[in-house]
Amino acid sequence: MSELGELAGRMRRFARDRDWERFHTPKNLAMALAGEAGELLAELQWLTPEESSRVMDDPEAARRLRSEVADVTLYLVRLADVLGIDLAAAAHVKLDESDRRYTVEDYRGSARKAPPLS
Amino acid sequence: MSELGELAGRMRRFARDRDWERFHTPKNLAMALAGEAGELLAELQWLTPEESSRVMDDPEAARRLRSEVADVTLYLVRLADVLGIDLAAAAHVKLDESDRRYTVEDYRGSARKAPPLS
Amino acid sequence: MSELGELAGRMRRFARDRDWERFHTPKNLAMALAGEAGELLAELQWLTPEESSRVMDDPEAARRLRSEVADVTLYLVRLADVLGIDLAAAAHVKLDESDRRYTVEDYRGSARKAPPLS
Amino acid sequence: MSELGELAGRMRRFARDRDWERFHTPKNLAMALAGEAGELLAELQWLTPEESSRVMDDPEAARRLRSEVADVTLYLVRLADVLGIDLAAAAHVKLDESDRRYTVEDYRGSARKAPPLS
Repeated sequence: MSELGELAGRMRRFARDRDWERFHTPKNLAMALAGEAGELLAELQWLTPEESSRVMDDPEAARRLRSEVADVTLYLVRLADVLGIDLAAAAHVKLDESDRRYTVEDYRGSARKAPPLS
Repeated sequence: MSELGELAGRMRRFARDRDWERFHTPKNLAMALAGEAGELLAELQWLTPEESSRVMDDPEAARRLRSEVADVTLYLVRLADVLGIDLAAAAHVKLDESDRRYTVEDYRGSARKAPPLS
Repeated sequence: MSELGELAGRMRRFARDRDWERFHTPKNLAMALAGEAGELLAELQWLTPEESSRVMDDPEAARRLRSEVADVTLYLVRLADVLGIDLAAAAHVKLDESDRRYTVEDYRGSARKAPPLS
Repeated sequence: MSELGELAGRMRRFARDRDWERFHTPKNLAMALAGEAGELLAELQWLTPEESSRVMDDPEAARRLRSEVADVTLYLVRLADVLGIDLAAAAHVKLDESDRRYTVEDYRGSARKAPPLS
């Protein structure tokens, strides 16, 4: 089984075993996901970009970042499962669009601001 | 290769080909991730929990949700890659902790509020 | 002095007295604001809409919500001050637009989804 | 009337006139607030800190930032009104705490990372 499928299955059982499925509406899970994304911001908000690039050199900061990134992952995987979305497939679709939209010829080495990845 | 590893590799090439690696600091990617999580919220904010559970029945809403969920996925995978974090492994660590912390015996069928998944 | 002006002045002195002005770039303050908005979400994410409407009846939850709402306010006021934006004036401009866009005739009593306030 | 009280009153009428009060639960308004905070992030995410400090020099970016900051303000004021929270008073309480916690003697000119404002 794929790693995302395995995570989704594990969380499905986790919720079912505790009778927490009623809490896991798309609305609630999107809030939880955004809340965890906010905690990630808090880890990085006062760092310069350069400091943020070296943040994993500090073992305690690294531990917190792994934990926050994992929390975002869990709620994202659970949300996608509840919505019936195949995360990897949906991500590739967006990257296909980005490949077409941000062609290497037009964007490489240009002084233009980076557009979003997708 | 795993599906997350494949996505990470594809985005690494995407950024390198456009000379956008300098934009992809952990700080900037965490902002992009949280911004996309905010767009997910916007899709669901006025729906009742019940409406949110049926949101994929509307083809246009389903298309937007797939797109937003994919955007969150892309920035999350890219952020983890830049930080050197194994997303699936980190997520399993958190689920192990949740299994120990929220035991089925203590939490099943209780009237207590659902704690976070992790 | 207006209450928003007073808050902005107090935070300006707070930052200056600690030599923290260099941390208060618009980028960093927007991250801090979004991080605090994420903490607000965390307070409400597992509640039903009805429970959320009664959340201030619980003194402990009320205390936390006052604290989170205050944190959002502080970073918002500080961000606006750093950007040179008059918050109240900017908000009235948006409400003027909303008045024109969402006319009472067209929106009252309709079954349409509520559009954003602004 | 205070400027925050005036904004709150105007939004109360706005919601009532359109019969949108049922949408304005604390849960939904917190989502809308966080969503707008996410849009603020999107305006600043690819800028360096220095570029973010000059962002208002660009009239088009300035217009967008005023609009996003106003949206955050509106949902914050509306959320506080629905919760019965006095925003300015709650913010001063937090600043009082910060004054005590982050004393000028201990924090000024130190090499320590800036703690949050509150």
